Amino acid sequence: MNADKLRKLFEQVRRGKVSPDEGVELLRHLPFEDLDFAKVDHHRALRVGMPEVILGQGKTPAQVAEIFARLARHSRNVLATRASNEQFAAVKKKARGAEYRELARAITLRRERKNYGKGSIAVVSAGTSDVPVAEEAVVTAELMGNSVEHFYDVGVAGIHRLLAHRKALARARVVIVCAGMEGALPSVVGGLIGVPVIAVPTSIGYGASFDGLAALLGMMNSCASNVTVVNIDNGFGAAYVATLINRV
Amino acid sequence: MNADKLRKLFEQVRRGKVSPDEGVELLRHLPFEDLDFAKVDHHRALRVGMPEVILGQGKTPAQVAEIFARLARHSRNVLATRASNEQFAAVKKKARGAEYRELARAITLRRERKNYGKGSIAVVSAGTSDVPVAEEAVVTAELMGNSVEHFYDVGVAGIHRLLAHRKALARARVVIVCAGMEGALPSVVGGLIGVPVIAVPTSIGYGASFDGLAALLGMMNSCASNVTVVNIDNGFGAAYVATLINRV
Amino acid sequence: MNADKLRKLFEQVRRGKVSPDEGVELLRHLPFEDLDFAKVDHHRALRVGMPEVILGQGKTPAQVAEIFARLARHSRNVLATRASNEQFAAVKKKARGAEYRELARAITLRRERKNYGKGSIAVVSAGTSDVPVAEEAVVTAELMGNSVEHFYDVGVAGIHRLLAHRKALARARVVIVCAGMEGALPSVVGGLIGVPVIAVPTSIGYGASFDGLAALLGMMNSCASNVTVVNIDNGFGAAYVATLINRV
Amino acid sequence: MNADKLRKLFEQVRRGKVSPDEGVELLRHLPFEDLDFAKVDHHRALRVGMPEVILGQGKTPAQVAEIFARLARHSRNVLATRASNEQFAAVKKKARGAEYRELARAITLRRERKNYGKGSIAVVSAGTSDVPVAEEAVVTAELMGNSVEHFYDVGVAGIHRLLAHRKALARARVVIVCAGMEGALPSVVGGLIGVPVIAVPTSIGYGASFDGLAALLGMMNSCASNVTVVNIDNGFGAAYVATLINRV
Amino acid sequence: MNADKLRKLFEQVRRGKVSPDEGVELLRHLPFEDLDFAKVDHHRALRVGMPEVILGQGKTPAQVAEIFARLARHSRNVLATRASNEQFAAVKKKARGAEYRELARAITLRRERKNYGKGSIAVVSAGTSDVPVAEEAVVTAELMGNSVEHFYDVGVAGIHRLLAHRKALARARVVIVCAGMEGALPSVVGGLIGVPVIAVPTSIGYGASFDGLAALLGMMNSCASNVTVVNIDNGFGAAYVATLINRV
Amino acid sequence: MNADKLRKLFEQVRRGKVSPDEGVELLRHLPFEDLDFAKVDHHRALRVGMPEVILGQGKTPAQVAEIFARLARHSRNVLATRASNEQFAAVKKKARGAEYRELARAITLRRERKNYGKGSIAVVSAGTSDVPVAEEAVVTAELMGNSVEHFYDVGVAGIHRLLAHRKALARARVVIVCAGMEGALPSVVGGLIGVPVIAVPTSIGYGASFDGLAALLGMMNSCASNVTVVNIDNGFGAAYVATLINRV
Amino acid sequence: MNADKLRKLFEQVRRGKVSPDEGVELLRHLPFEDLDFAKVDHHRALRVGMPEVILGQGKTPAQVAEIFARLARHSRNVLATRASNEQFAAVKKKARGAEYRELARAITLRRERKNYGKGSIAVVSAGTSDVPVAEEAVVTAELMGNSVEHFYDVGVAGIHRLLAHRKALARARVVIVCAGMEGALPSVVGGLIGVPVIAVPTSIGYGASFDGLAALLGMMNSCASNVTVVNIDNGFGAAYVATLINRV
Amino acid sequence: MNADKLRKLFEQVRRGKVSPDEGVELLRHLPFEDLDFAKVDHHRALRVGMPEVILGQGKTPAQVAEIFARLARHSRNVLATRASNEQFAAVKKKARGAEYRELARAITLRRERKNYGKGSIAVVSAGTSDVPVAEEAVVTAELMGNSVEHFYDVGVAGIHRLLAHRKALARARVVIVCAGMEGALPSVVGGLIGVPVIAVPTSIGYGASFDGLAALLGMMNSCASNVTVVNIDNGFGAAYVATLINRV
Repeated sequence: MNADKLRKLFEQVRRGKVSPDEGVELLRHLPFEDLDFAKVDHHRALRVGMPEVILGQGKTPAQVAEIFARLARHSRNVLATRASNEQFAAVKKKARGAEYRELARAITLRRERKNYGKGSIAVVSAGTSDVPVAEEAVVTAELMGNSVEHFYDVGVAGIHRLLAHRKALARARVVIVCAGMEGALPSVVGGLIGVPVIAVPTSIGYGASFDGLAALLGMMNSCASNVTVVNIDNGFGAAYVATLINRV
Repeated sequence: MNADKLRKLFEQVRRGKVSPDEGVELLRHLPFEDLDFAKVDHHRALRVGMPEVILGQGKTPAQVAEIFARLARHSRNVLATRASNEQFAAVKKKARGAEYRELARAITLRRERKNYGKGSIAVVSAGTSDVPVAEEAVVTAELMGNSVEHFYDVGVAGIHRLLAHRKALARARVVIVCAGMEGALPSVVGGLIGVPVIAVPTSIGYGASFDGLAALLGMMNSCASNVTVVNIDNGFGAAYVATLINRV
Repeated sequence: MNADKLRKLFEQVRRGKVSPDEGVELLRHLPFEDLDFAKVDHHRALRVGMPEVILGQGKTPAQVAEIFARLARHSRNVLATRASNEQFAAVKKKARGAEYRELARAITLRRERKNYGKGSIAVVSAGTSDVPVAEEAVVTAELMGNSVEHFYDVGVAGIHRLLAHRKALARARVVIVCAGMEGALPSVVGGLIGVPVIAVPTSIGYGASFDGLAALLGMMNSCASNVTVVNIDNGFGAAYVATLINRV
Repeated sequence: MNADKLRKLFEQVRRGKVSPDEGVELLRHLPFEDLDFAKVDHHRALRVGMPEVILGQGKTPAQVAEIFARLARHSRNVLATRASNEQFAAVKKKARGAEYRELARAITLRRERKNYGKGSIAVVSAGTSDVPVAEEAVVTAELMGNSVEHFYDVGVAGIHRLLAHRKALARARVVIVCAGMEGALPSVVGGLIGVPVIAVPTSIGYGASFDGLAALLGMMNSCASNVTVVNIDNGFGAAYVATLINRV
Repeated sequence: MNADKLRKLFEQVRRGKVSPDEGVELLRHLPFEDLDFAKVDHHRALRVGMPEVILGQGKTPAQVAEIFARLARHSRNVLATRASNEQFAAVKKKARGAEYRELARAITLRRERKNYGKGSIAVVSAGTSDVPVAEEAVVTAELMGNSVEHFYDVGVAGIHRLLAHRKALARARVVIVCAGMEGALPSVVGGLIGVPVIAVPTSIGYGASFDGLAALLGMMNSCASNVTVVNIDNGFGAAYVATLINRV
Repeated sequence: MNADKLRKLFEQVRRGKVSPDEGVELLRHLPFEDLDFAKVDHHRALRVGMPEVILGQGKTPAQVAEIFARLARHSRNVLATRASNEQFAAVKKKARGAEYRELARAITLRRERKNYGKGSIAVVSAGTSDVPVAEEAVVTAELMGNSVEHFYDVGVAGIHRLLAHRKALARARVVIVCAGMEGALPSVVGGLIGVPVIAVPTSIGYGASFDGLAALLGMMNSCASNVTVVNIDNGFGAAYVATLINRV
Repeated sequence: MNADKLRKLFEQVRRGKVSPDEGVELLRHLPFEDLDFAKVDHHRALRVGMPEVILGQGKTPAQVAEIFARLARHSRNVLATRASNEQFAAVKKKARGAEYRELARAITLRRERKNYGKGSIAVVSAGTSDVPVAEEAVVTAELMGNSVEHFYDVGVAGIHRLLAHRKALARARVVIVCAGMEGALPSVVGGLIGVPVIAVPTSIGYGASFDGLAALLGMMNSCASNVTVVNIDNGFGAAYVATLINRV
Repeated sequence: MNADKLRKLFEQVRRGKVSPDEGVELLRHLPFEDLDFAKVDHHRALRVGMPEVILGQGKTPAQVAEIFARLARHSRNVLATRASNEQFAAVKKKARGAEYRELARAITLRRERKNYGKGSIAVVSAGTSDVPVAEEAVVTAELMGNSVEHFYDVGVAGIHRLLAHRKALARARVVIVCAGMEGALPSVVGGLIGVPVIAVPTSIGYGASFDGLAALLGMMNSCASNVTVVNIDNGFGAAYVATLINRV
């Protein structure tokens, strides 16, 4: 029931064609979904400047291209994650300005570059193999209007590499840490800084890493209290939450 | 916003004190929760005759007794599951007519005995150790107004015991099967009859039963297509669903 | 021992060629399997109108086509699940009228369209990726003579999409809910309606979804009492049980 | 090497008793730990007003009391989590003003009540059994200088209870959601609001909940992008991160 | 339908009171269970001399005593496994001659001592902690009429202890091997001898033994082809199968 | 140290060239491995007529062919398990008389057909998908000189199919049961007969079968005491143990 | 067959009472175990100064005391691990000089204090809760004749605490690192130093630590190449291996 | 801050241009990373003669070749592990002298052959399938300047093969043991010798080996106290630690 229909009901009540009791009954029997106009959205501000997002994985190049082009008509920024070179080839024929971020496996269309964040987001990764996940976070955070700094290959077995960036890390408003294998990096980073750390376990590793389970469990048990965790390889989700924290 | 308030709004519209547009705005800004009257319940019939239920586990005898007594004031039948003897001692002081079904670990108050089901529910259990779970299902189903038959100690290692009850089983409208250890019984029962089988894995067993996990996995992989599964030891839930099936 | 042989035995007893004691002995030593005629089937009615079913997975196109054609000679409706396009190509050469339901990955032959159900079955799915499993349930339920309604892409992260269908859902006699990832949808649906909910965990997801294990565990622990669970991706099984419930 | 020692070195250099080259050598051979004064702390502001914290679990009442009393000498607010009644009895003899928050199993000393947060924190819990974890989050957040609102018993099987609080939830700057069993609540809450959701799986449940594993996996796979997860039953950690987000 | 009833039917047929066709119909409608007399048992010989068995675990002393005494009336040998001292105290008042085998946690009544096996059974255990499981196997095998030899504390980390018994082991017709921790012993024993080895993983160990799971998995993967496995701590089952092998 | 060397030592002692004390010292310092002649083999009889065996999996066709041909020179029967068509093509060029048992994925050379068993081995499988594993057991048992009977497609969901074979099963001296999915068949078979049952879980199934883990756990928890278990898909191992039992 | 018997055999050969061929035969038929004197032990040196060890867990105070006293008669140093206060009370009555190391839960008798190591062993632990495991390693290493240094409470969330000890750590010849929760410390330590690191996961933690599994998996996946791992809580084993490394 | 900058500061202090207090302040505000000169490295000796290492897995042939060639300019020995034939083809065009160790899947450049170890390293493997992992350990240990002996195909099911090598094994200073399936070999080897054993679980096996998990758990639970464990298939890591032990 949209506002128009409701207004007509009130008109009929005013004109006496519908009694108040009948009005109550009519409203009572309206399907729930028509009351939808009553929904509130206090957080619209947080959504301004957010790109439209497509998950590339499991879609054909043609499907990705079509969805991408359609979204590009209404939204200034568009992001396709887990996208292949083939998907990008199809997209760029339909969406002028689309670019492929190979390391991040992401297709981006970025026509608005306004910074909506109050601070910057740091993205840290443990090893070079974790970079694709970290880059997914970087690209996502950029398209969502954040200033982003990244620190790669600073794993815990060479702790001085991480310590060398301590001051830079300390400038961030929120830090994303991607690590596979033992997943120890978020704890160390979490102990160095005083802002929220979003830990992303990666599926990097072999044997007893069990496709990221070891890293995931490690991060869940972090002895640093400022660490929360997202799903294995979920660079996008980490950047999304980091964006929300950077905007509040 | 209850019906009274809404009626007053319509009255004001009718009297011209509130214009239709103002009425729309007023409704629009009403908190969601006040529109609650619009909720529909097509299944009320299914709920008639259902007892009020308390989970005894984790509550003190005094707590169980107080809740039980309160519910007994408004509901004719009351059920406390996973209840101890101590809890029953406290309950019976406050709720006259309450009984303790020791095997089922259940306290029952049954003042209405009408049969709401269209057929009967059969409860089957594999071993004597599975009986408490089976009895929880039996007591629950009885209090929910079903006719119930039970068949205990008919495990698959002595298949003739089960086959001896085949005709009786075939009379049921829905069958609950409780089994621990390898959890094979639901598949065999499911192959014998043509009605829905609700499988309840029990935590009975040791070693590689891993507290019911073996039985749970076995039942999920049942080669009989008429088997669905509920949580380990969840005799109550099985009886609840069986009741719904018996009433439709 | 078929009826003929048994009749001959009785004839011999009547004619005095076999004494009653000898008759007892003869029966006693008959192999068990020959007593098979004594089997009862109280649920034949429930099986009327059920299609013959083939599991396509793991069979060659030629095998599927041959089995399908053979079944089509004796049964009006035939269903092949988990079937590929190649299998369909082979089938349609042998079985006129066979169709391929691509989303459902099912080959169907539907020559009888009688509705055997007493109500309708609703099939709900959380995300677009869950649709193949949901469609398997839809196609199966249709071929089994049910009226089916489906509600797709109504996941819990956008609860209003689900709520918008509440009244429609409430009309169903049994509801199938397919969901991957966290598998939360059955609990929410189960709380909205009063009929049995059959939950189908799907293998959709990545990382900590562990190929459907997360969804499966979630559904086993549903806080809604009217939920039972079938195996991961088992749309067929869910529809089979729903059909039984819809016919009782 | 503290500042005093370093100053003496500079004095000696100034007085010519130590040459610049000798100064370099002396510094070079100083143990690393003495360079500790060089550490930077850009986030000190975030730490102002934070209580000192003790983990009660695994400590004797005497130990808790002694540590508590010592901390109370230097810090205005002190918090002991997972604390028993016996521990509180010992604490209150030594620390005047200490209180026991029974539901939260927490001992608190709160002499400063200044609000350091920029918004409020909402704490949501699914069932009454999850309340102890939720209360640990509430008490922690309060002692860390946040304004806190809580919404209990709003599990997904009765979604209208949650929806009734939608507007109130939408006012929060960050939301903590505690849920056991299937752990579905964070996804639903995450879909309703636009701020970060910190999910806390609880060990509530039985059977296939596997002491919180089912809830943990469910939350890791949340289809709502604004959800991050902490360890099972870690109400304290959730409140700590929420505090950081509320202060940035 | 017992033989008497069947004989009466034949009598009636002979006397012409029931026609052959009516006889067929009457048999056809007899419930399945009454045809039970037709059951065959080709293996009765294997069961001669087997004791009656009670699982003590989970039963009260009174229950064990009552069942034990009842069985002792009809069976010469009786065995109660996983039995406590308290249970034995109750049993010995009711069953004269009952003894308690403390290491094996078994109550035995052994009035027949005939050897039914064709060879002997060897029971091997890795460490002293595995002895209770090994003793359960020993006592069970003895009561089942086998000649039994045992070899304890011959774990793989001191392989010479095992090798010292090689010739004695080689005399057995079947070998039971009980081992916890890494469960390696069955593979080594299996390589030394040419008869069937029944491996019993025990729950002995800590940490990554996960209550016997490590030993169980190790034994399932044995590189010795003559090894089969029973459930964790299942000394009784191992002895039962060994008895069957020793009798065939 | 072979017998010759030892004899020389004794000669020297006899001739006085080596004193008894020197003899002891010489023996003491001989390397352990040279004492190898002392090894006993009481079970050689059990090994007579056993084929040589190659695991095809992970080897190139050329490797399999070469090993196969070499073994065929010294052994009358040769078996290659988990062998592909390509491997067979290579083998048959080098080993005349080799045959490919496609269902069993086995290459066999069988020049001796003597029956070494005292009875027969029955091989039972639950579904058609389990047949490859069952056939591996059948072929292995045949080449090891056993009389083998097989019973396929007798799963527990159609228990009458199994019961129809009860008498035939009862004739076997040992029974191998292959089953995937819930792995319930060994328990049912175990309850019907009185001889040892060797259960082989198969990796057949999907979803919660977890590649045979569900079947494995189910079989470990079998409520029939005459069941032991081998590794998933290990038809060869089951036949090997069955052969040993059939020969003792 | 001990040296005496062997000497007698040689005597008889020398005297011509036994021919060389008969001598060979006699040796051939000697049971394997009697050849035991031939065993070589190249590593005896490594065992000098090692204490006798008892596992206290699962033994009664009387048993521990008796074994302890017996060992104390022949060995200068004795160690009982996982020992309780009650066990110590019993031991000290029988073994003068025995001491209880409460933190380590160890009873020690140390009458020889010679240092057999070539360097020192460092024992590092992450949190105060890990100290019992670390102390077990310390006490064990001390009794095995090593110089030991310990560094406690240097977890990765406060990395400066660890770095402050870097030079001291670098002096050790082998380092033992005990850590629960995420088990990250060994990787960080391993990256700081160039000697072998033995990682001991502890069962410290809750929720997703799964009794040490998370730490174990983390350590198995360490990105530092100089890390090996022992069982959960196995401080004793770590010290044993460290001792071997310190002596080679 | 390098030494030059520091020296200038001291110069300024000496000349009175910077007061001691100002000097302290200046040092205090220098970024941490500039104090890097203070880092100590006591273990450089252990690193002499170590090759540069590349992980081939996941890199293109061109990438491997480029990195290999670059490293070959500065380092005398270079090792690429998990390398394919294709990668070697690319490498040998750029790095003269590079060789491919096919079994080990390793590319090596070995221009320095000095032995840096104090003893030798023994590498033992259980089955032929474990050889690739064992060879990775052998090649790594050789390039790291160790004397290496290997003992293959000495699995526990044929224990005499292992015992035949006991004396040779006893000569090693450290032993690496690679085993899949049940992973029992390290325990047996550990019991035979007195030096550290580094156990490498391999992913060899099927079914319940779960890609090496069974072997890993078995090794973690080894009853031999001198065993430590590295990740599944981690032959490189085992050789690295063995090298460290061989050099200390």
